[in-house]
Amino acid sequence: MEPSQHASAVLEGSRLALARLMTQVENGEEQGLQVLDILFAYTGRAHLVGVTGSPGTGKSSLVNQLALSYRKPMVGEPRRVGVVAVDPSSPFTGGAILGDRVRMRDLAGDLGVFIRSMATRGSLGGLAASTSRLVQALDAAGYEVILIETVGAGQAEVDVARLAHTTLVVEAPGLGDDIQAIKAGILEIADILVVNKADRPGVESTERALRSMLQLAHPTRHIFVDSGGHHAMQTEFSSAETAHSAGPGDGIPASESDEWMWTPPILRTVAIEGQGVQELAAEIVKHRQYLVDSGGLEQRERQRVKTEVDNLLHDRLLRQWRSSIPSELYNEVIRRVMDRETSPWQAARELAA
Amino acid sequence: MEPSQHASAVLEGSRLALARLMTQVENGEEQGLQVLDILFAYTGRAHLVGVTGSPGTGKSSLVNQLALSYRKPMVGEPRRVGVVAVDPSSPFTGGAILGDRVRMRDLAGDLGVFIRSMATRGSLGGLAASTSRLVQALDAAGYEVILIETVGAGQAEVDVARLAHTTLVVEAPGLGDDIQAIKAGILEIADILVVNKADRPGVESTERALRSMLQLAHPTRHIFVDSGGHHAMQTEFSSAETAHSAGPGDGIPASESDEWMWTPPILRTVAIEGQGVQELAAEIVKHRQYLVDSGGLEQRERQRVKTEVDNLLHDRLLRQWRSSIPSELYNEVIRRVMDRETSPWQAARELAA
Repeated sequence: MEPSQHASAVLEGSRLALARLMTQVENGEEQGLQVLDILFAYTGRAHLVGVTGSPGTGKSSLVNQLALSYRKPMVGEPRRVGVVAVDPSSPFTGGAILGDRVRMRDLAGDLGVFIRSMATRGSLGGLAASTSRLVQALDAAGYEVILIETVGAGQAEVDVARLAHTTLVVEAPGLGDDIQAIKAGILEIADILVVNKADRPGVESTERALRSMLQLAHPTRHIFVDSGGHHAMQTEFSSAETAHSAGPGDGIPASESDEWMWTPPILRTVAIEGQGVQELAAEIVKHRQYLVDSGGLEQRERQRVKTEVDNLLHDRLLRQWRSSIPSELYNEVIRRVMDRETSPWQAARELAA
Repeated sequence: MEPSQHASAVLEGSRLALARLMTQVENGEEQGLQVLDILFAYTGRAHLVGVTGSPGTGKSSLVNQLALSYRKPMVGEPRRVGVVAVDPSSPFTGGAILGDRVRMRDLAGDLGVFIRSMATRGSLGGLAASTSRLVQALDAAGYEVILIETVGAGQAEVDVARLAHTTLVVEAPGLGDDIQAIKAGILEIADILVVNKADRPGVESTERALRSMLQLAHPTRHIFVDSGGHHAMQTEFSSAETAHSAGPGDGIPASESDEWMWTPPILRTVAIEGQGVQELAAEIVKHRQYLVDSGGLEQRERQRVKTEVDNLLHDRLLRQWRSSIPSELYNEVIRRVMDRETSPWQAARELAA
C-alpha cells in the first residue's frame, strides 16, 4: 500500500490500518515513518495522560476504569480513548513476552477504544521515541484521550512526564519501604497523585507520607518562584516575541516553568470497584484547563515537539557523520582507547574534527 | 586544584579527592571531566558487577554482603570494593532525596571500601553515562571489584548490563504477579540469577518460574547459534583483523555474541544472614573466567568503550551543529512544527542540511 493510501485509511478510521502502522512504527520501518509523516498534520488534538507507578499499585485497573469512565461519562459525550501500555518485556528479543494483555474485558468490542501494548526497546531513547510515535498515530486517528501506562521507576517515568500533558503517579498502601523509596523519585513528575486500593489498611499513612514528600519536593518550586521564576518566564516570552511574532518561551523546561502554580492533589481510588474514578477524570479535566490558562499546555507541546525534532536530528547528524568517516579510522581510534593510549574524550574530539 | 594534581591525589588514594571528583562528574563539571580524562589511562582493571532486580528483593543487603565477602574472603587476599548505588531520586532537582543511604554499617570505617549513592539524572543517556564515569573514577582509584546497584525495571537495567562485566538479576519469593512480569523483561540481561530471601516460602516456585522463563529466553540464543552465531563471530574476528592487527569483532553486540555458551545459573541466597554469598562470589569469578576464555571480556570492554566514545561524540556533534545554526532559524522551524505546517521529519531534514 502507498503511504498516502495507508494514511487515508488511518484517518478514515480503519483499525487494521492503524494497527499495521503501529507495528511498522515500533519496528522502525521506513514505511511507518512515511505514513506518520503524512499524518503529523492531523495530530495535536488529543489530551495525553501518563499513568505511572510502582508494580502492585493497580495501574492497569486504573487505566481500565479511566477508559470506561471516558466511554460512559456522567455528563457529556463519550470520548474516544487510546491506551498505550509499555510492557516490561525483553529489551533484547524486542518482543512483548506478555503479548497484548488479556485484560480490559469491559472494553472489548468497543470501537471507541484502541489498546496497544508495546515492548520496551533496548536502545536508549528508543522507548520514549517509539511511544511518542504510537501516541501520534492514535492522535491522528482521532482518539481524544490517550492513556500512556508505564511500569517500573526511573528514566521511563521521566520520559512519560515529558510526553504527557497530565501525569498521574499511582501509589497503594502497604507496598513496603523499598517502594517508598521509589516514590520519592517519581513524585516530582506527578501532576496528580493517586492512592489506589484505598480500601486497604494503611491508606492514611500512605497519604501522609505522600504529603510530606510533596512538601520536601515543594521547596524547589518555591525557590524557583522566589528567585524570580515568574519574571524569568515573562522575560522568555518577550524574547521569543522579538525572535518571531508570538509564542511561549524557550529554554525553560516545562517542568520548571509551568508547574509553580499547580500543587498536585492527592486522590483516593479503588479502581477495581470504580470508586473515585469519575473524580479523577474530573481532576484531569481541571489540570488540562490549568495548562490552557497558564500557557503551560503550549509550553509542554513545544517541549514535546523539540524533543521529537532533536531526536530525529541526533539520528540524522550521527548518520551523516558515520557515512563521512572511514570505518577503519573509527575502529583504529576505538582500539587505541581500549589500549588506554587515548581517552574517550580525546577520541571524540579527534573523530568529530 | 589543577586537574593533574587532583588526578594524582586520586591515584595516591585520597578518598576526599575521589569523592570530590565524583561530585564534579555527577554535576557534569568540566573540571571533573578533565581529571577523568587524565585518569582514564589507569582504568580497565576492575571487574564490574551489576546488581539489579525489583524492589523488595533485598538487593542492597546482597550488595552489602558481597562487599563483605570480598573484604573477608575464605581464600586469598581481601579485594578493594567500590559500590555505586543508583538511587531512585529526583530527576528534576538532581539531588538524591534519600542521600547517601544509612546502611552498610558493617563496612563503615573500612578504607578498602568506597560507597557512592547517585541520583538518577533527568536527561536520556545521562544516567548510564554518569554511572560509567563514576565507575571509571573508582577503577582508576584502584578499587578491584565495583558493584553497581540499580532499582526498578527496564531501561536502567539494560544500561547496567552494557556497563557491567557480570550482571546479577536478583529475585525473591512472594513478590506477586506484577513483579513476575518485570522479571521476564530483565531476565535476558542476567549472567547470574539470584533468588534472595531463599528461606521464605515459595522459593521453589520462584526458582521454577525463573527456570521456565530462562527456557523461554533460550530459544533466541539457540536460534542465534543454529543460524551461524559462532560462524558469524569468527567472521567478525577475521574482518577486524583485516582492518587492523588484532582484536575482537565489531558490530555484534556483546549480548548476542559472547553469551551463547553461558547459561545463567540460578543461586539461592539469604543475604541478611550471609547464606550463599561466598558461592555467589565464586560464581562471579567463574563468569569472569568464562569471559576471559571466550574473548567475551574484551568484547564487552570494546562495547563499553564504543558506547562511551559514541556518547561523547553525539554531544560534540550536536554542540558543533548548535553553534553553527542561528537560534532564530531553529525556533522558527519548531514553531512551524507546532503549527503543523511541517512534520518533525521534514524539520530534522531541513535543520541538518
